[in-house]
Amino acid sequence: MSDIQIAQQATMQEVSQLAEQRLGLAPQHLEPYGRYKAKVSLDVMTEMADRPDGKLILVTAISPTPAGEGKTTTTIGLSDALNRIGKQSLVCVREPSMGPCFGLKGGAAGGGYAQVVPMEDINLHFTGDFHAIASAHNLLAAMIDNHIHHGNELQLDARKIAWQRVVDMNDRALRDIVVGMGGTANGFLRQDRFDIVVASEVMAIFCLSNSLHELKQRLGDILIGYSTDGTPRYAHEIKAHGAMAALLKEALKPNLVQTLENNPAFVHGGPFANIAHGCNSVVSTKMALKLSDYVVTEAGFGADLGAEKFINIKCRKAGIKPDMAVVVATVKALKYHGGLALKELAEENLGALQAGLANLQKHLDNLQQEFGLRCVVAINHFVQDSDEEIALIENAVKQMGAEAILARHWAEGGAGAEALAHKVVAMLEQDSTACDFLYPDEMGLWDKIGEVAKRLYGADQVVAEKKVLDKIAMLNEQHGSMPVCMAKTPYSFSSDAALRGAASNHTLTVRDVRLSHGAGFVVVLCGDVMTMPGLPKRPAAERIDIDDDGTITGLF
Amino acid sequence: MSDIQIAQQATMQEVSQLAEQRLGLAPQHLEPYGRYKAKVSLDVMTEMADRPDGKLILVTAISPTPAGEGKTTTTIGLSDALNRIGKQSLVCVREPSMGPCFGLKGGAAGGGYAQVVPMEDINLHFTGDFHAIASAHNLLAAMIDNHIHHGNELQLDARKIAWQRVVDMNDRALRDIVVGMGGTANGFLRQDRFDIVVASEVMAIFCLSNSLHELKQRLGDILIGYSTDGTPRYAHEIKAHGAMAALLKEALKPNLVQTLENNPAFVHGGPFANIAHGCNSVVSTKMALKLSDYVVTEAGFGADLGAEKFINIKCRKAGIKPDMAVVVATVKALKYHGGLALKELAEENLGALQAGLANLQKHLDNLQQEFGLRCVVAINHFVQDSDEEIALIENAVKQMGAEAILARHWAEGGAGAEALAHKVVAMLEQDSTACDFLYPDEMGLWDKIGEVAKRLYGADQVVAEKKVLDKIAMLNEQHGSMPVCMAKTPYSFSSDAALRGAASNHTLTVRDVRLSHGAGFVVVLCGDVMTMPGLPKRPAAERIDIDDDGTITGLF
Repeated sequence: MSDIQIAQQATMQEVSQLAEQRLGLAPQHLEPYGRYKAKVSLDVMTEMADRPDGKLILVTAISPTPAGEGKTTTTIGLSDALNRIGKQSLVCVREPSMGPCFGLKGGAAGGGYAQVVPMEDINLHFTGDFHAIASAHNLLAAMIDNHIHHGNELQLDARKIAWQRVVDMNDRALRDIVVGMGGTANGFLRQDRFDIVVASEVMAIFCLSNSLHELKQRLGDILIGYSTDGTPRYAHEIKAHGAMAALLKEALKPNLVQTLENNPAFVHGGPFANIAHGCNSVVSTKMALKLSDYVVTEAGFGADLGAEKFINIKCRKAGIKPDMAVVVATVKALKYHGGLALKELAEENLGALQAGLANLQKHLDNLQQEFGLRCVVAINHFVQDSDEEIALIENAVKQMGAEAILARHWAEGGAGAEALAHKVVAMLEQDSTACDFLYPDEMGLWDKIGEVAKRLYGADQVVAEKKVLDKIAMLNEQHGSMPVCMAKTPYSFSSDAALRGAASNHTLTVRDVRLSHGAGFVVVLCGDVMTMPGLPKRPAAERIDIDDDGTITGLF
Repeated sequence: MSDIQIAQQATMQEVSQLAEQRLGLAPQHLEPYGRYKAKVSLDVMTEMADRPDGKLILVTAISPTPAGEGKTTTTIGLSDALNRIGKQSLVCVREPSMGPCFGLKGGAAGGGYAQVVPMEDINLHFTGDFHAIASAHNLLAAMIDNHIHHGNELQLDARKIAWQRVVDMNDRALRDIVVGMGGTANGFLRQDRFDIVVASEVMAIFCLSNSLHELKQRLGDILIGYSTDGTPRYAHEIKAHGAMAALLKEALKPNLVQTLENNPAFVHGGPFANIAHGCNSVVSTKMALKLSDYVVTEAGFGADLGAEKFINIKCRKAGIKPDMAVVVATVKALKYHGGLALKELAEENLGALQAGLANLQKHLDNLQQEFGLRCVVAINHFVQDSDEEIALIENAVKQMGAEAILARHWAEGGAGAEALAHKVVAMLEQDSTACDFLYPDEMGLWDKIGEVAKRLYGADQVVAEKKVLDKIAMLNEQHGSMPVCMAKTPYSFSSDAALRGAASNHTLTVRDVRLSHGAGFVVVLCGDVMTMPGLPKRPAAERIDIDDDGTITGLF
């Protein structure tokens, strides 16, 4: 059965009952969106401020491959399993972006028997958060061009506008555009672009803000461009932040849905993992920690990018720390890292698997030694995996100072991840020191980049052209205390996607840096960053359909 | 008090109670969006197919002026008044577009003590319908450029793409743009534009469809452009309509909210009244007629445009007819039509008023004689109006064969419109012949334009350049049975906005015609049509704000 068929057969519990019975939320805290989705009032945070936090489990992974690792399914499956073995667990994942749903990827609400539902709603529009973010973003864009059109009091330099426009669609034609054609009534001609909405700085701000107050302040701090004399100009100077925050008022409330097994799930926020930090919202994670004994969450891409930014950016700004990490690996992906081609992955190959384990080893070393974070490896099971391959991973991981547990949640739901859940509980019952940031706030930007590159990526050196070094030095003066948001290929520890396994002794080239002043980080670009995907020759949209009764097909 | 202050003081009833107690809707028919908004399942239509329809009251107006007529407030006030005098009434209005909220206009959910609430939600995002419409629209746009990029099987001529993009924002910089710059990876360079979402043909289709089935069919029928050999190409040929309909699945369900006096209101759909027909959705109007004895609705602009298109387009496609019309007039606006300047309107001026009554007379004649529709005039009261001015209108309207009733709903809510409600009920209790379309389907397009221009606008003749006449003749061959959707200035019966009162013996110039193939009408452009507004020098967005508790200010 396809994912959507499994999802459509789910028997869902009314969200009001789920909220009350499972999270102790009173009706006044809940704003239902239909019968199976609800937003939860931020008042919960104030009322429950004195409650102790639950345990935070970060699901991360080896370097991603075309073979797929199953981070989201493992996150959902583990939470279902924790609930099955009698623990109270809440899953926190990102909202899918519609654009990719219509392209290659299909839905992004888990898969197999580890999904969040209602799947179609979550993939299409959901509770409107991304639309609200796009509206706030585009309001600011319209106000900037309008400011220039009506006299340009701030003397904005039309060549140095730092704010583009967004749409939640894979639309390559909008990557590089000219706006303001058609004469004086239409404003000034200038070059512009549209990004996909998940690449919006508003999305990053939304996901990093601890409150509506902080959200508005961060929106006001967005750098919109420079005056002709070089003065940086911010969103609050054109009075856009109040209306932008008003547009995001409802969106900021966490979305409560459920897994296929009727366990609660927060699905909230979803910034790109390249030019932003790739984690669900701070408000939903922090609320989850007040509402549940165990909170299972994930971060985008492999641990070199996802876990690093989860800890160094999200946790730093939210004042939280993960209590342990689950590192997802698959036999197929490890063989791919061991050098096999995609079409060779279905066959047993212990040599390739052994070679590919270097990738897992490096991620484990990073998490355990550099961050001081306890780890367990989850082997996300595929039907083609041989017993010998599984055993090989289990033995190898033991020698890495950790344990690997086979998990069959994709095929079996929470029951398939019970062993993993038992292990997680056992590990969390032992005392442990808190995980550390990789670098302190007061370290300079260039040194922060070096820490990440050398300690996590295995680079020998970091280089950049003089103009980039100058830009970093300039940003360092005003914004040196910000964390760095690394943007590089997720497919390799290096900046060369072709280098599988555990690339080492490589040189990391910093191509450019960008200030996300409102979000509060400096984006470090090590390679090309795509902020607007395109559709493939046969987009998924062609297969998506709806019948007269409203049943959707073709999402997967 | 400002509109938003009045709205925020409202004591709202839970929407589930409102639905059950006032409309007899069972919980399974309702999908709550928060506690005060809900979508109503289209299954209601099937289950209640045998019920008799209620009475349909169309609120329309004299030609609009900067002084304002108050069509929406009268619609809401009349429905509140009908409920006050013991009748069951449901109001059906359009959803506001966010763009204008941030520009000059502020909110569009009524005003004073005649509003629909929650006002902030209705003005900002509401239940996400417009976002869904924008997504469906932009998905088709992305798929068109993607089709051209990946081999262009349909041989689409990039110079003849008939489908642009949309955003719900007043953004003049997007009126005329170039897309696809930046090299081969970004597709083919071509000129394009963004319209505001209410100008989207998807919006018109959405509002004219009787079912999800019809919606999908009409989406598939959208003309996307022409092949290099001149063949028209449609959305279904690039398989976009299924995914577009899936995106609109939830949106198509009518939105139930309430008036300040806790009476039910459907707020659903909102196509532009110039290049589209300017009425709320057919599904909400038809559902309302099953659920309520009286249904009060409105149509955009004055009766020459709004009522004409309501009857000739919406009613024709929905198979419904209004039972009577309420024509809204104000002392100020009539004096403006009588030749006064804006700053002179506050002072009594019986001469100007008398002269301006010609505008009202022509609208009444049109409705009563050309459409055969019963009418009552509602004088929407302003504090500056003198008793003599009111009396003058009352007497004049009597001589026009109708009655004028003073209505004070803006200041007094439903209580201020009770006299109007009594008159409406009395008129509807008398037998009447059904109102007529102005022209039959089988009349040719050019003759249809002539019927509207000569009988309603008072034009002597209709003219067009040869190339426009040729285009009309060409469209007439395939699409001659479609109604015409007139797009001209709303400020005059003529195509010259400066001609106030009841312009007659003028010449109507048809500048161009456009086929809205999916919506099923031919747009007749008599003058410039703005499909993307701009923001003013001091946009309302600058004043909109939100405090730490989530209270929004500055919407008005």
